[in-house]
Amino acid sequence: MSFEINNLFREGLPAPVAARFSGYPKYNFVGGHNDNDGIPIDDFIAAMTRSLKAEGKNLATYGLLSGFQGYMPLREHIAKRLGRTAGMKDGAENILMTSGSLQALELVNDLLLTPGDVVIAEEACYVGSLGRFARSGVTCRGVRMDEHGMDMDHLADILSEQKIAGKPVKFIYTIPTVQNPTATVLPIERRTRMLELAAQYDCAILEDDCYADLLWEGERPPAIRALDNAKEGEGRVIYCGSYSKTLAPALRVGYIVADWPVLSQMLSLKTDSGSPALEQLMLAEYCPTHFDDHVEKMKSVLKDKCDTMVSALEENFGASAEFSRPKGGIFLWINLPENVDTVRLAEIAAKDGIGLNPGSIWSTNAEKYRSRFRICFGHPDHETIREGVAKLADICHQEFGVPLRSGNTVR
Amino acid sequence: MSFEINNLFREGLPAPVAARFSGYPKYNFVGGHNDNDGIPIDDFIAAMTRSLKAEGKNLATYGLLSGFQGYMPLREHIAKRLGRTAGMKDGAENILMTSGSLQALELVNDLLLTPGDVVIAEEACYVGSLGRFARSGVTCRGVRMDEHGMDMDHLADILSEQKIAGKPVKFIYTIPTVQNPTATVLPIERRTRMLELAAQYDCAILEDDCYADLLWEGERPPAIRALDNAKEGEGRVIYCGSYSKTLAPALRVGYIVADWPVLSQMLSLKTDSGSPALEQLMLAEYCPTHFDDHVEKMKSVLKDKCDTMVSALEENFGASAEFSRPKGGIFLWINLPENVDTVRLAEIAAKDGIGLNPGSIWSTNAEKYRSRFRICFGHPDHETIREGVAKLADICHQEFGVPLRSGNTVR
Repeated sequence: MSFEINNLFREGLPAPVAARFSGYPKYNFVGGHNDNDGIPIDDFIAAMTRSLKAEGKNLATYGLLSGFQGYMPLREHIAKRLGRTAGMKDGAENILMTSGSLQALELVNDLLLTPGDVVIAEEACYVGSLGRFARSGVTCRGVRMDEHGMDMDHLADILSEQKIAGKPVKFIYTIPTVQNPTATVLPIERRTRMLELAAQYDCAILEDDCYADLLWEGERPPAIRALDNAKEGEGRVIYCGSYSKTLAPALRVGYIVADWPVLSQMLSLKTDSGSPALEQLMLAEYCPTHFDDHVEKMKSVLKDKCDTMVSALEENFGASAEFSRPKGGIFLWINLPENVDTVRLAEIAAKDGIGLNPGSIWSTNAEKYRSRFRICFGHPDHETIREGVAKLADICHQEFGVPLRSGNTVR
Repeated sequence: MSFEINNLFREGLPAPVAARFSGYPKYNFVGGHNDNDGIPIDDFIAAMTRSLKAEGKNLATYGLLSGFQGYMPLREHIAKRLGRTAGMKDGAENILMTSGSLQALELVNDLLLTPGDVVIAEEACYVGSLGRFARSGVTCRGVRMDEHGMDMDHLADILSEQKIAGKPVKFIYTIPTVQNPTATVLPIERRTRMLELAAQYDCAILEDDCYADLLWEGERPPAIRALDNAKEGEGRVIYCGSYSKTLAPALRVGYIVADWPVLSQMLSLKTDSGSPALEQLMLAEYCPTHFDDHVEKMKSVLKDKCDTMVSALEENFGASAEFSRPKGGIFLWINLPENVDTVRLAEIAAKDGIGLNPGSIWSTNAEKYRSRFRICFGHPDHETIREGVAKLADICHQEFGVPLRSGNTVR
């Protein structure tokens, strides 16, 4: 009798990955990959060299002598910068470094959620968060959105419905600044209203701010946590951020900002003996002197790529593709005519090396968003963007008859 | 009414951490910290510089173009080295890089365990694994040990008992080479027997080999996974290793070696978008040319510290402290007279800045090991070891009357 280790696996596992990794698609319009030329390699080398010379011997100690909350000089820098850019009043003691902001999301869910709980999110929402809610066995209710993000009246309705139903909402998950996938920016009035509603219905807020540094048009509103800080710190808002979108996703460095009641409990859930050291050492050395300039450069690179993507879409899809021009970030959220099922479009496009994210998967309402898709422009170069969008239009025409004509003809 | 976020926490959380980190004890005889002077800083800088120059731009892509299994050149190095040092036949395709070997332990538990399951471990066992089993809601049965590690007849008895009771064992967790905390090395005959028993009782084996590189006396036996490989790869053994003990714990780099049925399922559980990149880049550059030499140096440093610790214990505790001289690793496992409760000893010693690990916590049988403790010698320098052990003997004398006399007098 031959042994099958699968027989020992627990029940209820997610599906295994289907195949070994074989490279990214040529037209890589998915995922939060960055611009290859945007990695400041020489500055990274210089920062790493300086920090290893100064602090390298402390690699011998778990937590680099800063404990498992994370390397203190980096936490100090983050606190200072969030004060300046997001209006937050938190000190380094309120920051917990994580292995990417995905670990931050895991920790918040692990802290707050029990199967059967209810959370609220924007109706179009980051698939990684939706997947985590599903795995936690909780219901995620989607709030309608307009060009400024979450609709506060609908939020109020859902909070009220859930209270009446005896299943009050645990927390509101929001990406208020450059929302993923819609790129909307929630105005300060709505942020204030969200806090009021959270207070009225006694729930927490998880503010996922990982794109906020990439806003290139208009002023960055204060973080929701900053507005909460101002009310003598009710501690209702758990904030998380990341270096993935501004610097490099492969680094896997994120952070949580919260009060000690939250952090002390999270530290007992974060059983990994600290997040990796080299990234923290390097960032603590690099960021105070270079990060602001880098972000400005990155925004200019991304805005140019966004312009190329917009032109390519207009040229190849014409009126068939509806979208708002983003004020920041790395993606567009596109609406195609209603006969287009973007899940099917993505399947066919994948065969031609084009990756895109179907709207039905990136939302709480598959039917409503079946003709939407997210397309990312951060990683591919301008030529690849133009080529890929033209190819996609051809595929879309062949399969769904839209845009009306294919090839390099006017549509 | 003031808001208390604690009211939203889920039930069943572990206790929060009691206090903010305020530094390690002066006499730091706990934890897997390394020798500060052992960090090869210049080599790290050189390796980091070379790898960032060559591969830095790929930081823009999740997974460094190697996918979420981990950076391919590092996996290739690990596979090759495990072939040479542990007799393993696995290629890079069987390796999954993890954020420390603690994440490896988490993944194995998440893959295999359901509350109510039964696992088996050495009776004296790494507290981090015991804690994980407790949090997973499983029963961990301890196997008796002698100077060569796990007693195979007792293992057979437990496997049989559990089968008869209708609760067959899911897996055997073992640290076969330089066991933590006993520093025993399981001979090849017992490894073979363990595999036979696992086959007979249809369970898996989790082989935690994170100290194996630090064996300085005697030959390193083949890994249990290597013996399984030889049987045409039943795939029964999941192997994990780490760079924490040989290079630097703050790096947080570990790995799992297993077959695709295990790895494909683990990849769907490892939702962190890959383990951090800088460590993987640096190690892939550093290790092929430097790691073997470094390990030889490290073993010599550790053996010297071990000798100092042994002398200090003999001098200060005399016959009151029973222990075997380790053949490798970073700790001793000491037995004091039975009137000594080492939990209490640790509490009192902590006030004088001495950290040690009580045996009742590092075992599946608190009562049997109440007079044992683990003392680590990897991090403190020779003078600190001598001072700390003398202080500890004084404290022990004052509190428990052993060793018989205190101060710098013969005991």
